[in-house]
Amino acid sequence: MSFEAFRAEIGRLADVLCAVNLLQWDTRTMMPPGGVEGRAHQLATLTSLAREIATGPALKSAIERARDTLAGGGSDAERDEVEFAAGAIATLERISSRLVSEAAELKTRANAAWIEARREDDFAGFAPFLQRTVELQRDIAAAIGSEGHPYDALIGTYEPCMTLSRLRPLLDELRTELAPLLAKARDLNSGVDLAMKRFPVERQKLFAKELAGRLGYDFARGRLDDTVHPFEISMTRGDVRITGRFREEWLPAGMFGVWHEVGHGLYEQGIAPELTRSAFAIDFVNLYAVGGTSFGMHESQSRLIENRVGRSRRFWELHFGRLRDAFPDELAGVSEAGFWRAVNAARPGPIRVEADELTYDLHIMLRVEIEAALIAGEIEVRDLPGLWRERMRDLLGIEVSTDREGVLQDVHWSSGMIGSFATYTLGNVMGAQLFEAATRDRAVSAGIDGGDYGPLRDWLGHHIHRHGRRFPAEALLERATGEALSTRSYLAALRAKVDGLAA
Amino acid sequence: MSFEAFRAEIGRLADVLCAVNLLQWDTRTMMPPGGVEGRAHQLATLTSLAREIATGPALKSAIERARDTLAGGGSDAERDEVEFAAGAIATLERISSRLVSEAAELKTRANAAWIEARREDDFAGFAPFLQRTVELQRDIAAAIGSEGHPYDALIGTYEPCMTLSRLRPLLDELRTELAPLLAKARDLNSGVDLAMKRFPVERQKLFAKELAGRLGYDFARGRLDDTVHPFEISMTRGDVRITGRFREEWLPAGMFGVWHEVGHGLYEQGIAPELTRSAFAIDFVNLYAVGGTSFGMHESQSRLIENRVGRSRRFWELHFGRLRDAFPDELAGVSEAGFWRAVNAARPGPIRVEADELTYDLHIMLRVEIEAALIAGEIEVRDLPGLWRERMRDLLGIEVSTDREGVLQDVHWSSGMIGSFATYTLGNVMGAQLFEAATRDRAVSAGIDGGDYGPLRDWLGHHIHRHGRRFPAEALLERATGEALSTRSYLAALRAKVDGLAA
Repeated sequence: MSFEAFRAEIGRLADVLCAVNLLQWDTRTMMPPGGVEGRAHQLATLTSLAREIATGPALKSAIERARDTLAGGGSDAERDEVEFAAGAIATLERISSRLVSEAAELKTRANAAWIEARREDDFAGFAPFLQRTVELQRDIAAAIGSEGHPYDALIGTYEPCMTLSRLRPLLDELRTELAPLLAKARDLNSGVDLAMKRFPVERQKLFAKELAGRLGYDFARGRLDDTVHPFEISMTRGDVRITGRFREEWLPAGMFGVWHEVGHGLYEQGIAPELTRSAFAIDFVNLYAVGGTSFGMHESQSRLIENRVGRSRRFWELHFGRLRDAFPDELAGVSEAGFWRAVNAARPGPIRVEADELTYDLHIMLRVEIEAALIAGEIEVRDLPGLWRERMRDLLGIEVSTDREGVLQDVHWSSGMIGSFATYTLGNVMGAQLFEAATRDRAVSAGIDGGDYGPLRDWLGHHIHRHGRRFPAEALLERATGEALSTRSYLAALRAKVDGLAA
Repeated sequence: MSFEAFRAEIGRLADVLCAVNLLQWDTRTMMPPGGVEGRAHQLATLTSLAREIATGPALKSAIERARDTLAGGGSDAERDEVEFAAGAIATLERISSRLVSEAAELKTRANAAWIEARREDDFAGFAPFLQRTVELQRDIAAAIGSEGHPYDALIGTYEPCMTLSRLRPLLDELRTELAPLLAKARDLNSGVDLAMKRFPVERQKLFAKELAGRLGYDFARGRLDDTVHPFEISMTRGDVRITGRFREEWLPAGMFGVWHEVGHGLYEQGIAPELTRSAFAIDFVNLYAVGGTSFGMHESQSRLIENRVGRSRRFWELHFGRLRDAFPDELAGVSEAGFWRAVNAARPGPIRVEADELTYDLHIMLRVEIEAALIAGEIEVRDLPGLWRERMRDLLGIEVSTDREGVLQDVHWSSGMIGSFATYTLGNVMGAQLFEAATRDRAVSAGIDGGDYGPLRDWLGHHIHRHGRRFPAEALLERATGEALSTRSYLAALRAKVDGLAA
């Protein structure tokens, strides 16, 4: 009975957080401009109610009573869930209400300043807000606490158990190994320039949706809408929404963007039904309703679908015909092989979100280094534009001409997010490990070979999705692959790709 | 300072109720089928949080402190608002949490049973749920209390200050006066049968939207989406959404439906900015974020736009050309006068929502009589199918062949709503009074004559919309028109219309 009482209180929290997710989804897809001010109030009130429930006496005493009862019985899953909630709430409580409300208030102003600064290419206009963000995030890091580098506390809010000292060798390894691959790949020209054509948006969307369904996304428990910056968001496993942005002038962005979100969506749609409204579907520290266990593991699912599946040669052998049916004029004279080469072209550029697989992680390295040094107080905000240019030269061999294409390009810092960038690379790495392990299963590899992605989804569902947040990312990874976190699979996949492109 | 503290707590309540409205909007427009179960939990949790805030100690002490401070100063508006909240909360508290949760739980089951019963034309399958609904509504009526008929308490939850004894003479008057009008009108055939054509839905929507904008609906603070049963809902005055249902086979339903919702939308968009997140934008008894002062006054705005403006001869003299441009083939050979006659055709039928202006109120009378007798215990649920047939014969002279087209047609009872039907007729009556008063203003009548509805919207905004829920409906009506509630304007408008149709 007392576990049910605990679940009832957790359910209330989950309901409020799912409502917050709907407000967020609506803000980014449907809300008319006039709704901005009201929405800010609604989000603030619901988020503060969620915090009140999460840290309130009712949940605390429910946890205590559940512990007492479960000591004399109950399942491992029940005990795990109660302890998971207790631990997460303790971390949440270390971040005081004052810090939370200061961060929320700063975020609104910093974001507006960033939009303006980016438009005007005026780093100085954003610098004071970034300075204040760094200070506040330092305070949050100190409040959470960490044994090693202060940056670890922030990384941990996105990727529990990850630390800077474990990230660095992994990133160094990638840098060393990616360099020759990039050198080899950048000289390979696909001969197809997709940017020369205009692809009507409605047909792009139909094609992307068709493949989203084939990849296993369940539209009876989701929907695809337009937005400016695509995202996936979930209101329990029964309602997992994805968004896309389609542009006439660049076909790949729209469809790969959708399949990326499909990867996230499969994760949330695959959470076990019994975890609905449970503690294992709540990110307590970020007060966010989500079933995926960490940002990195979530990203592993999206990268796996987008890159390991969607950019593979076999995928386009199977589906290019449908794409050419949808765009007979636009793709006249383009071969399946040429198209595959075009969507895998490697070309160093200044913008992270436009980067290919061989350069993406170099963008992440730059950001991790800078964030760690900022939090440690080793560099100053005012030095960032110069530092950015210098490191881009070292890492990617390119000249950054404006801050708009440099230090001002990402939304993260203006949203108070410091510590999240590494999860993109962790996603690349874990996604490749999981894909390699999944395709050792004959049913999975045969399915992919024949264009049936059901066995892949089921494998991921069984090993990853259904568990929700019960197990940490690396524990899940090891159980699923028999291997600890490692760049091996990822580098092997990239090497194979470059070899294919060179063939 | 203490009024601000009161407003802060009221603001939190308003935020939660606006979030509930967004959940409701989403449920009826966007939510995938898989979201049903989660959404029910989210709505239940947010509604109960709203009740906790509304009846909680923080708001109570804020009211007491505000009263103390305002006794020695403060504006009438501030004092009015605090007393309005205090009175409304007292009513809300009379309805116990037990009654509220029983009603919520019954509603879910009763609604499912009603859908099934209507599909199968099986009144007996719905009867036990209706019986339980009547009993529960009797308990709620008793809890609220009333000086006269017990039904008055329920009417009052939708139309404060209205009573059965005041409704009856008004309804009798309409019945007496409408009979000869109907007799005269039903012999007039427009010669145009719109049901013979198919009107592509996308063009219907474009035309309806274009006119919605001309009628003053601000799309920067709203949006129009598809739904099954059209409605308007507001998340503060900056985000007021309307919905429509367009069918190829019946052009008038879609466009008049949209303009009806535009009338509601103008009301909510016209609430004074300073009433945002105030007690005057909350229906405490129904725990609903709404700025309009009563269901009847809200309906007066929608009926005014739909019928007094949208079905007028002048409206189609001005806009039929645009409609014919949109549907050149479908409307070939149809004249502006013929079209106007077609959308004003009077024809008694069994279904309320399809009724024309001359028969609509007769449908309401039937329902008001039945509801009052059910609540008073003068009739039994099992007698309703027969009683319905009998009264439809008396009132409209038609034979009802099935319960699906009779007692099972409305969603209201299955949603626990008893007492709301009269507000449709009150809307017709008040809408006509307000339109008559508004058009005594030369700018308003000249605007309407020239197709500029801005002056009409401004007049309604000044006299009705901006006040929110500060004044009761009839007080507003008297201030705006110089006249008490009366059928005179409404009957005059209908007489003039029938005379026009007969000319």
